[in-house]
Amino acid sequence: MPPVIALLTDFGLEDTYVGAMKGVIAGIAPRATVIDLTHAVPPQDVQAAAFALLVSYQDFPADTVFCCVVDPEVGSGRDALALELGGYAFVFPDNGLLTPLLEGARAARAVRLDDPRFHHRRSSATFHGRDIFAPAAAHLAAGTDLGQLGSSADPSRLRRLEWPRPEPAPEGFRASVIHVDRFGNLVTNLPGDLLGGSSRWRVRCGATVVERISPTFAAVARGQSLAYVGSAGFLELAVREGSAAQAWGVRRGEAVTVSRVAAGAP
Amino acid sequence: MPPVIALLTDFGLEDTYVGAMKGVIAGIAPRATVIDLTHAVPPQDVQAAAFALLVSYQDFPADTVFCCVVDPEVGSGRDALALELGGYAFVFPDNGLLTPLLEGARAARAVRLDDPRFHHRRSSATFHGRDIFAPAAAHLAAGTDLGQLGSSADPSRLRRLEWPRPEPAPEGFRASVIHVDRFGNLVTNLPGDLLGGSSRWRVRCGATVVERISPTFAAVARGQSLAYVGSAGFLELAVREGSAAQAWGVRRGEAVTVSRVAAGAP
Amino acid sequence: MPPVIALLTDFGLEDTYVGAMKGVIAGIAPRATVIDLTHAVPPQDVQAAAFALLVSYQDFPADTVFCCVVDPEVGSGRDALALELGGYAFVFPDNGLLTPLLEGARAARAVRLDDPRFHHRRSSATFHGRDIFAPAAAHLAAGTDLGQLGSSADPSRLRRLEWPRPEPAPEGFRASVIHVDRFGNLVTNLPGDLLGGSSRWRVRCGATVVERISPTFAAVARGQSLAYVGSAGFLELAVREGSAAQAWGVRRGEAVTVSRVAAGAP
Repeated sequence: MPPVIALLTDFGLEDTYVGAMKGVIAGIAPRATVIDLTHAVPPQDVQAAAFALLVSYQDFPADTVFCCVVDPEVGSGRDALALELGGYAFVFPDNGLLTPLLEGARAARAVRLDDPRFHHRRSSATFHGRDIFAPAAAHLAAGTDLGQLGSSADPSRLRRLEWPRPEPAPEGFRASVIHVDRFGNLVTNLPGDLLGGSSRWRVRCGATVVERISPTFAAVARGQSLAYVGSAGFLELAVREGSAAQAWGVRRGEAVTVSRVAAGAP
Repeated sequence: MPPVIALLTDFGLEDTYVGAMKGVIAGIAPRATVIDLTHAVPPQDVQAAAFALLVSYQDFPADTVFCCVVDPEVGSGRDALALELGGYAFVFPDNGLLTPLLEGARAARAVRLDDPRFHHRRSSATFHGRDIFAPAAAHLAAGTDLGQLGSSADPSRLRRLEWPRPEPAPEGFRASVIHVDRFGNLVTNLPGDLLGGSSRWRVRCGATVVERISPTFAAVARGQSLAYVGSAGFLELAVREGSAAQAWGVRRGEAVTVSRVAAGAP
Repeated sequence: MPPVIALLTDFGLEDTYVGAMKGVIAGIAPRATVIDLTHAVPPQDVQAAAFALLVSYQDFPADTVFCCVVDPEVGSGRDALALELGGYAFVFPDNGLLTPLLEGARAARAVRLDDPRFHHRRSSATFHGRDIFAPAAAHLAAGTDLGQLGSSADPSRLRRLEWPRPEPAPEGFRASVIHVDRFGNLVTNLPGDLLGGSSRWRVRCGATVVERISPTFAAVARGQSLAYVGSAGFLELAVREGSAAQAWGVRRGEAVTVSRVAAGAP
């Protein structure tokens, strides 16, 4: 089976940066299937990249190599790493990009991508996506053992981001909006399984209150607000066939409170 | 030959939705070539999706599987379908997305995608692109017979869209703008072959009148308006090396009248 | 090894133009790996396309076929060409798109893409990307000899663009901004090797003066301005973790002066 490499960057598609990475990969791992996870991470926004990876990596087949390059500190002393975790491999700058994946994860093998034999022949101090991360991902996909790519690193010492976690509150949870998608749907950081499969929760976001959890968009009329557990497993808020972000004036970071509705309440 | 899957959605490229679909496909049909038709269909705009498919599906090789997900009713009772038509296969929500392809088409085989063995293991009520349509497309590409994917459906009972058709008028046709492209070119719903290969037609769109049909952009000077039969076979209007949409303030839906110019007229 | 085709157009991703090209390619060269260099070249901007190609083509493996379609004169008498150069093949309209690649390049073989047997069966006068260039690239990738695709052309008579070259100035160089990237970094047309590896240069762009060449972003604090030799080998200007284009109000074409700092100067 052809190996799979998934790319996640903040490079956008306006420039040739992503194309150049794929050109480098094609030279090293010509049979790999290269998939764009997204390149629209806001510039240097490591938390947004971490969230994008968190919600989608499990949709990929085993042994996929994730090449993640959101790298505000490129050219500094920060390490470039490769890591094995949960049947996948990841190459990334050591800036916390894997924080939510590492929670409760078993010990994993890691190396620094410091062996220049595995770097691109056109070397720069500003585009490690092309020069270090893409070649490393390609070599892994082509069968090189991770341990060959550089010196051993301690996976327990990876840098972590401050990660916005929901907090318990008297009647439920204090959460927040962690992602606004193309449709204007608001993805919160509250794992849906904390809701225990019940619809009896009141969700407040800014000035908007939704009185229950719906199973799906179609449970409400067009233009109506709803709360539901989304495809990534988190509580989401939306306006059916509309944009909650626009209608409510809400952005990433907005507080969301989730409260149990008393049995017998209307 | 590697099978081909073409993707058409309104998911955009800002989120990881398209990447997740491709991850799911890679796990099921690792040798498939996956091609993005476009993901920039305006949210929930089934007519725009139908037009995008109409103008391009014939450019793909036989047996291509088109995975079309513009699905305002996701989670409702609308059927998820797979259909064979014209040497191609299509997976799509039953909302009229195939309307213009079905005109005059021969009877075709269809099934409902209701067999959970062919669904993604991460199942949601809001992202059937990942959970139902992508796996179905991948199984078809990998060789599963369409009849295996679910219960039989009657292709003659597919839902149809109201489709904007040109109408005959005393001296020609009443048409409309059905698509505005990146360049600001205005694609109408008038099939070019109704013009009989003649250049002697006057085309009016808003306040603009073009006095003939040109063979190509290069027939007029830069900045000049022109009408021509475009690459999809429909009458189009443009400003050479400019944007007709911007210059004329025209959007999708604008009326276009096409009138025969009398022989001997200047 | 699967052949590689790289696509460079001004078609954007909003329409199905790029998808249609890939559909055509899949029918002719089903095993080719197709890579998007970028499709975000500003409409009809041949110079921007030439720059995009210049900075990235060398990242691709030998024998890559570059399919370059930025073609303001489509439908005119301009030639459609295929060319061998430096171990790569290029298909493109003869409008100067290869200007910077041809400087000092050895004699190369070229043909006009005028043999209709290698054109798409759906033929148009406005979409040669689909009808002429994509099929030609696919046939080359599938192993057809370039000489078969049409009549011989003289590579020494290719059209050239006016190319903005840096000029010597009393104490250094007069250069200009040739590209503004997604991050707002300003790429100049000054080859970095003209700086002789020294950091002792003063760079002025609009009202901003940077007093030295830095090795990388991390050499300055967040929000600070810097000049450095970028990944394409050209002098660039940036604001660390910010947008120089936005902060300084600078666009493509802005003059940049580069002056040697006297030894012993502070």
